[in-house]
Amino acid sequence: MTDPESWARKMARRKAVQDAKMAAATAEKGLLMVHTGNGKGKTTAALGLILRAVGHGWPVGMVQFIKSGGRRPGELVALERFADLVDCRVMGEGFTWETQDRARDISAAQAAWTTAQAMMAEPRYRLVVLDELTIVLRYRFLAVSDVVAGLTARRPDLHVVVTGRHAPPELLGAADLITEAQAVKHPFQAGIKAQVGIEF
Amino acid sequence: MTDPESWARKMARRKAVQDAKMAAATAEKGLLMVHTGNGKGKTTAALGLILRAVGHGWPVGMVQFIKSGGRRPGELVALERFADLVDCRVMGEGFTWETQDRARDISAAQAAWTTAQAMMAEPRYRLVVLDELTIVLRYRFLAVSDVVAGLTARRPDLHVVVTGRHAPPELLGAADLITEAQAVKHPFQAGIKAQVGIEF
Repeated sequence: MTDPESWARKMARRKAVQDAKMAAATAEKGLLMVHTGNGKGKTTAALGLILRAVGHGWPVGMVQFIKSGGRRPGELVALERFADLVDCRVMGEGFTWETQDRARDISAAQAAWTTAQAMMAEPRYRLVVLDELTIVLRYRFLAVSDVVAGLTARRPDLHVVVTGRHAPPELLGAADLITEAQAVKHPFQAGIKAQVGIEF
Repeated sequence: MTDPESWARKMARRKAVQDAKMAAATAEKGLLMVHTGNGKGKTTAALGLILRAVGHGWPVGMVQFIKSGGRRPGELVALERFADLVDCRVMGEGFTWETQDRARDISAAQAAWTTAQAMMAEPRYRLVVLDELTIVLRYRFLAVSDVVAGLTARRPDLHVVVTGRHAPPELLGAADLITEAQAVKHPFQAGIKAQVGIEF
């Protein structure tokens, strides 16, 4: 279909464009990354970043704002092999329609945010993951402006990942990277249940 | 703002809806999951699923179709702590605009697909990740129809994740789950370079 020489020429042009783009991007900084949207892959992408980070020997902190200590998911079991590097705090009370107690949800969210702030202030961490922080913002368990101010005031080389649906506009405005996971097709719609190893 | 009783009633209704949805989804099956789109988080979400899987003690296979053995990314270093469970084969030759040699790219893609098929046929694996398989389909290094037939013919309880941009329609048609990662904001656009621990 394609003759080898024209392929090589096309790819050489492609490489020149790519190299120029790479040369233009020179800044380094700690990123505020937001994984939002209704699709699967927001928390798992944060877990993948944790795996990448610990491979570089980075200490990592994670606070889970919604998940509760009940059923222990696979990723927490796996992360025990990195107990030297990863500190994961499960500080939620479960989904708010499970607790049905707003005062308790607010108090859990505040305690989790206090822990998150302490982690961000701890110089040894290179990456802090705030899992499902957007949910507690969505329900106004924490003030968005306080949280965005806290995230923005972090030290310049600290990477932070925030996950969850419905990320508020103020948070998106402060982010360096936003990925929206869109559910184009989801097995739940086809009557397939949440399966071990895939959802938890 | 919200009185506790009406909050509790609202959340009780929400829980009833949620419980009904969960009850309706009863099937279990090995999923074909596709992470596509132009945003960050496709490979990292697959890595997160690997972390979840190994936490359940599942053996996992991964074939990387584009990445080459040159620079060793953090995740591969980290996965060495799961050498008892994870078999990762880095079988690419780098981006096609780096090799500029179509025949070599095709031969690498074919070798990687042969390895992928052998992994899918290996009963001990519960999850197989085919990283950036879509790229070799995009460039027609492999025939889409052959690959989709191979994926569809896998045993019913095997989960497979395929990652990469430009997933072809035939692959999307065969998938149980499709997440499209959309880059709403990307630091590269703001002149921030690909950083260690974040991109590799």
